[in-house]
Amino acid sequence: MKKYAVIVAGGSGQRMGTQVPKQFLLIHGKPVLWYTLDVFLRAYEDLDIILVVPEEHMETTRTMINAIGAPHRIRMITGGATRWHSVYNGLQPIREDAVIFVHDGVRPLLSTELVHNCYEQAVLMGSAVPVVDSKDSVRVMTGEDSTAIERSRIKLVQTPQTFLSSILLPAYAKEYRETFTDEASVVEAYGGKVFLLNGEAENIKITTPLDLLFAGKIIEERASG
Amino acid sequence: MKKYAVIVAGGSGQRMGTQVPKQFLLIHGKPVLWYTLDVFLRAYEDLDIILVVPEEHMETTRTMINAIGAPHRIRMITGGATRWHSVYNGLQPIREDAVIFVHDGVRPLLSTELVHNCYEQAVLMGSAVPVVDSKDSVRVMTGEDSTAIERSRIKLVQTPQTFLSSILLPAYAKEYRETFTDEASVVEAYGGKVFLLNGEAENIKITTPLDLLFAGKIIEERASG
Repeated sequence: MKKYAVIVAGGSGQRMGTQVPKQFLLIHGKPVLWYTLDVFLRAYEDLDIILVVPEEHMETTRTMINAIGAPHRIRMITGGATRWHSVYNGLQPIREDAVIFVHDGVRPLLSTELVHNCYEQAVLMGSAVPVVDSKDSVRVMTGEDSTAIERSRIKLVQTPQTFLSSILLPAYAKEYRETFTDEASVVEAYGGKVFLLNGEAENIKITTPLDLLFAGKIIEERASG
Repeated sequence: MKKYAVIVAGGSGQRMGTQVPKQFLLIHGKPVLWYTLDVFLRAYEDLDIILVVPEEHMETTRTMINAIGAPHRIRMITGGATRWHSVYNGLQPIREDAVIFVHDGVRPLLSTELVHNCYEQAVLMGSAVPVVDSKDSVRVMTGEDSTAIERSRIKLVQTPQTFLSSILLPAYAKEYRETFTDEASVVEAYGGKVFLLNGEAENIKITTPLDLLFAGKIIEERASG
């Protein structure tokens, strides 16, 4: 089946304490986003990327895409005010039956195996949302108070959140709600079922200088075998 | 007020895929546990450590303690079958009014500032449990099914979980329950109130080779300034 990766690269870099948006920070000389795109391009030959980027980063991103060497497989779309609006924009070009991966541009460390696993489960069951266990105990806040919740009941959600287009597109054709946190919550709100699968410990979101350090070390290790 | 750090170093190293228990794995030539002990010894001069260790690691741990150069400030106690039983054993020597830090031996990257903050809040409010936000979306499992929960309502719990002895000791004098996940849940089960405070992103639990790599990088960065 045809494959689309909607990659959301809209971060402002605020948490990073830097002017450069997170997706353009360099790991061993290449932008974070470069690594993310590279994984999806390598995962499947018949996969096209829809890259959702804030207006002000279009030019920088275009330069980077041209350097990747597969510009015909990557289409740029302008981002929106929220995650939902950015993904909504990214989904607009998709007309045919397809498997759609929605992925954070700042998660460059996923493996092609995870992309394959998500694809296979989505074809079979309609959705595939990678999750990992929390290593820490977890508490749930209720106003100012908090209570313990059994750690095994909690799953931390990664991306690519993967869906058949026949499930994802109708959910995004409906109304936006402020309670939407990710694609799974959108699908769920409109009656779709979300099936989980095992994510990867290394598939972290780069949001702090520490994460960048970590990503550099991982990529170094991988390169050395 | 007198201070005790009950440090639980009971890991079996299973997840690490190695024979060496996690607390003895080396970071730049020193065991993980060495770094943990060092932070608490440096944090306060009138702080004593109660180190809870499985019987089979007593000898190795003793050798390490002697190398640290403050053996009189560290007492070893044999661990129990569960986290609760280990902490229970570790609390037995404490008789006087004190602030008690309960800390994971495999969290070597906390700062002395965090120890100080926990102490001050515990003196003032009775408890101090460091938490951080989840960067990932979160789902709660109910049997086979899962539902989204607002990410801002979720806190990931670190250690040192810090309490006045007048709160922690009575809670541990009561019955063990299988639902206890950490010290906060024990205190809470017996009517105590748990006050949170900001933890630290770097204060991770070393449970995989990846974490060890990460810790090495952090310690390197700190050493170089």
